[in-house]
Amino acid sequence: MNFEFPVHELPEVMRGSRVERRRVLVGGSAFWGTMVEGGADAGKLRLDDGRLLDADAADYLPPVAPSKIVAVHISYSSRSFETRNKPKPTETPTYFTKPPTSLNGHRGQILKPADCQYLNYEGEYAVVIAKTCRNVTPDEAWDYIEGFCPALDMGLQNFRDTDQGSMLRVKGADTLLPIGPGIVRGVNLFEQTLRTYVNGLVVQEAHIGDETIWGPHYVIADLARHITLVAGDVILMGTPCHSRSVDPGDLVECEITGVGRVAGTVVAIDAPRASALGVGHAPTDTAEVRRVAFGFDERVPDRFKDNLRSAHKKAHAKDPS
Amino acid sequence: MNFEFPVHELPEVMRGSRVERRRVLVGGSAFWGTMVEGGADAGKLRLDDGRLLDADAADYLPPVAPSKIVAVHISYSSRSFETRNKPKPTETPTYFTKPPTSLNGHRGQILKPADCQYLNYEGEYAVVIAKTCRNVTPDEAWDYIEGFCPALDMGLQNFRDTDQGSMLRVKGADTLLPIGPGIVRGVNLFEQTLRTYVNGLVVQEAHIGDETIWGPHYVIADLARHITLVAGDVILMGTPCHSRSVDPGDLVECEITGVGRVAGTVVAIDAPRASALGVGHAPTDTAEVRRVAFGFDERVPDRFKDNLRSAHKKAHAKDPS
Amino acid sequence: MNFEFPVHELPEVMRGSRVERRRVLVGGSAFWGTMVEGGADAGKLRLDDGRLLDADAADYLPPVAPSKIVAVHISYSSRSFETRNKPKPTETPTYFTKPPTSLNGHRGQILKPADCQYLNYEGEYAVVIAKTCRNVTPDEAWDYIEGFCPALDMGLQNFRDTDQGSMLRVKGADTLLPIGPGIVRGVNLFEQTLRTYVNGLVVQEAHIGDETIWGPHYVIADLARHITLVAGDVILMGTPCHSRSVDPGDLVECEITGVGRVAGTVVAIDAPRASALGVGHAPTDTAEVRRVAFGFDERVPDRFKDNLRSAHKKAHAKDPS
Amino acid sequence: MNFEFPVHELPEVMRGSRVERRRVLVGGSAFWGTMVEGGADAGKLRLDDGRLLDADAADYLPPVAPSKIVAVHISYSSRSFETRNKPKPTETPTYFTKPPTSLNGHRGQILKPADCQYLNYEGEYAVVIAKTCRNVTPDEAWDYIEGFCPALDMGLQNFRDTDQGSMLRVKGADTLLPIGPGIVRGVNLFEQTLRTYVNGLVVQEAHIGDETIWGPHYVIADLARHITLVAGDVILMGTPCHSRSVDPGDLVECEITGVGRVAGTVVAIDAPRASALGVGHAPTDTAEVRRVAFGFDERVPDRFKDNLRSAHKKAHAKDPS
Repeated sequence: MNFEFPVHELPEVMRGSRVERRRVLVGGSAFWGTMVEGGADAGKLRLDDGRLLDADAADYLPPVAPSKIVAVHISYSSRSFETRNKPKPTETPTYFTKPPTSLNGHRGQILKPADCQYLNYEGEYAVVIAKTCRNVTPDEAWDYIEGFCPALDMGLQNFRDTDQGSMLRVKGADTLLPIGPGIVRGVNLFEQTLRTYVNGLVVQEAHIGDETIWGPHYVIADLARHITLVAGDVILMGTPCHSRSVDPGDLVECEITGVGRVAGTVVAIDAPRASALGVGHAPTDTAEVRRVAFGFDERVPDRFKDNLRSAHKKAHAKDPS
Repeated sequence: MNFEFPVHELPEVMRGSRVERRRVLVGGSAFWGTMVEGGADAGKLRLDDGRLLDADAADYLPPVAPSKIVAVHISYSSRSFETRNKPKPTETPTYFTKPPTSLNGHRGQILKPADCQYLNYEGEYAVVIAKTCRNVTPDEAWDYIEGFCPALDMGLQNFRDTDQGSMLRVKGADTLLPIGPGIVRGVNLFEQTLRTYVNGLVVQEAHIGDETIWGPHYVIADLARHITLVAGDVILMGTPCHSRSVDPGDLVECEITGVGRVAGTVVAIDAPRASALGVGHAPTDTAEVRRVAFGFDERVPDRFKDNLRSAHKKAHAKDPS
Repeated sequence: MNFEFPVHELPEVMRGSRVERRRVLVGGSAFWGTMVEGGADAGKLRLDDGRLLDADAADYLPPVAPSKIVAVHISYSSRSFETRNKPKPTETPTYFTKPPTSLNGHRGQILKPADCQYLNYEGEYAVVIAKTCRNVTPDEAWDYIEGFCPALDMGLQNFRDTDQGSMLRVKGADTLLPIGPGIVRGVNLFEQTLRTYVNGLVVQEAHIGDETIWGPHYVIADLARHITLVAGDVILMGTPCHSRSVDPGDLVECEITGVGRVAGTVVAIDAPRASALGVGHAPTDTAEVRRVAFGFDERVPDRFKDNLRSAHKKAHAKDPS
Repeated sequence: MNFEFPVHELPEVMRGSRVERRRVLVGGSAFWGTMVEGGADAGKLRLDDGRLLDADAADYLPPVAPSKIVAVHISYSSRSFETRNKPKPTETPTYFTKPPTSLNGHRGQILKPADCQYLNYEGEYAVVIAKTCRNVTPDEAWDYIEGFCPALDMGLQNFRDTDQGSMLRVKGADTLLPIGPGIVRGVNLFEQTLRTYVNGLVVQEAHIGDETIWGPHYVIADLARHITLVAGDVILMGTPCHSRSVDPGDLVECEITGVGRVAGTVVAIDAPRASALGVGHAPTDTAEVRRVAFGFDERVPDRFKDNLRSAHKKAHAKDPS
């Protein structure tokens, strides 16, 4: 492990019994519930009001309502190797943001406008802030974590050429952040494995304890140097290698073992009306865009590439085109 | 009409083209859309991002997110006659509140705890506040209205004997305010008719222009004398005569012609865990509770009573008990 | 003590080191800080960004942003004796609500409209909810408490005759809930004393452990039977005997020893414009209004009455009228 | 004028009577009010509850509570010339974001950490979104504007070398967005002049109608192609040439004639605690950082440069160093 600040004692948020809180829409109301961890009802969702739901059949809402969403650019050594050919992209983490309107829940529709070709997945784990946090050390930062969620930091790479690095249009469009199904405490995140699936086949995989460059405590302490984090804020912790583009109809999932598996389906929508009038940066298909959308295959383990090919074959088996 | 302050000119919120805004959950994200008013797609919901939905198949969220919900006790002459035997219950309107957690959307589940017998419907129209409003006259108040929604102000009458008139537990429990499906502008509310249905049969009916005692402009001006109303706040405008109790399985709807029809289904849940420990006021079945739950039938038109009987017969036709 | 459910072990929110969090406006931004508990800087406010403020000179914001505010009608035996002549007003607590717009911070202006004579103080302690809470037992309820605040539940008694017991206009007008200066953990509330002051003289006093009828755990468990409490929600825990009316210029304070002392000054404002047009219930000065505004002096210890007289003498010493 | 889409008719938000809404803290409560536009009380702030305040002595809160804040990188030809040596920086606007925690009100403290040398001003006008907005044309976009505010988009340039263009730490730190004093409608923005002052001397100046490259309607239509804007969201419209660094004690102001003048004072704070532990990107003082902090003086009118020198002389006249 290489977290800059070694963790001498497992923090409270990773100790004790596993607790997973989910938020669902039943009829027209949102309800919170807790996943049943054992016994005859294990795997069901117990709403706070006592009702027991089939968790697989529920309609999920995002389990967070952040005032801000901050994402680490690169925090996995495999991703750093893939994109920079070195174990650490920079000496210290760098960040961008996604607006709250990008939030999506488990089993969401991930919208791909008709004029964009490249919508990349990035499987990540998210950290949810528990209370107002400013000017803390990494050791103190653990106390400000509510829990962890699987997340998909999707990106419309056709806007890679604009916004001068802020990626507002790449990463910030509506629906580009499926997160959930729940917020989890009581799981040792460092022993978990992140896997991203496309149509059921693994396309990204990383052992969080072994491959993460900076831990959440370090990132929180870094951000909270100048920016107040508030209860509910979300930090996306970066993705391992092999982010690639997906197509309408594809099922994309990110699993953090022990934490959960969030899913989203790519859905085509019309290009925006203003685009037809020539308003704003048009989606581009340049070398730089393709470089990011397709990545650097020579630096990626073959099985991810093979799986992605199989995944697409599987998804489009019945597609006459 | 008898609105205390005659309306000389139809206010802007009731003029022009009808616009209905609805909020739905698609996958895991909330989206706003506008109902298509004419043409081939009339009756469909056009999401803002361009997608066209079957409005009947959508999953609805409440179209409002109020910081406060204020309800008029009695604002229909038929209800005043029923409960007070006079055309006006008091010289000026009186109010209570419902907490935001009572909100429910179209086609919601209205929860009835196992230890409560009487869950009454009250069909109403709701007023949504458009912007910060304080110290206005009735004439000015119209400018502070965003639009109107059908609503069901449900009440657990078994808590009638407690809370000394605030009705917090009668009216404030989770899910007791189905509202929607949308917020509507451009409809002359005074020409509309309110109807409540149980299992498809009419159980309340009132012509809003003829029977309402105080208009929304009057109520807003009254409240805003001392209380700042903020954007999104909701005012429930009272119910006509014949509020009665419904049972698990019953489908309750409130229609405001021209505005919409909101539905909710009564669903049984277990009694709360703390109740078994003797915590808090136990649901009661006293004379006063029954008086309100069953109303004053001698003052109510027969067909409402007949329809309620038929509605229950219809709902429980296959019920062996 | 008489809390219905004896507390066998002091809950975590009352154990450990005292922590007080306050929220202030510095320039045009709101900042959170923690009171320095010992050493040379004791009594100063350390903002999270490191700045050290003179806590006495700060501009306070309410330390809470609740979605709902629920108040217990009567939860002190002295108040029950005064108003009902018995040690317990009812077998179980009853409640009303105040809208979020009634919130006010430490050293706030408590507005008294020109056409109202009776603005009563009620010193209370408030409970702040830490996280989503529904269907809990009293034992579990302690875990859902963020902390405690002093509060003043002010009431415009001239609206006592309207709203049929909900007290929306009595208790719900803007500014009628000074609360703060901070939220406090790590103090054994049961050993504290509540005191209300008018112009520096004690007018209410109660030992919380000895005189409170229902503890916060009981009240939370009661409410959460049917109503979901969410993070930030506020519960006002009732007032002891001798709530009386105050006048413009009066300084009203509520101190909970060990927790803090919140202050507000009564300020006269014009009657609302709509009142001049005859809109809404006019403030009344009836026997029932006076009964509540002036209370039942024969059941109140003399020194509170004497102090209130002295307080008013003190406040108006230089007042030629 | 050069707004890509000529404005044939002045939009409603710029027509009619001037209305300015401000939000202030009085005692511990926030109140909205409207500036008195004429008569004996002109220039005073009339709170909605009727009180009349000296607007100069009020404590201001930001007049907005956005869920997101989006900023145009460059939208003035003078700024484009200064930084790119051409009249338009790019064919279409590019954007970055600031988190809501960067909000500051009129007369706020703009915090400069001890380890940062370069804190640049950028005077701008801000657009406040009135209602949910997605997939609109520029012509339609006008209807979604609530009003306009002066704003200062401050930046800690020592973080220029990190975050790969997102500028999260440059532009996102707490207090770096003084905005206000109010939100204004009824002013023709295209006829106004933007001026930034340091210690009373003009350091930036631009005629909005003549020098702005893209109008707010264009920017809204561009963003809303993929991102839903919601009521209260803020768009910062870019700054003209001569953004430069200021020091603790400096008074920075941005005036939009006809709209208002927002002020902030630079205040030194300690470096964050985590920085001493080596956490995160350290502030840098590289050539690129200086290039942006000091700008390209040869492309800037002399008087701005002279004024900035005089402003600093004025501010530090009594400073023995």
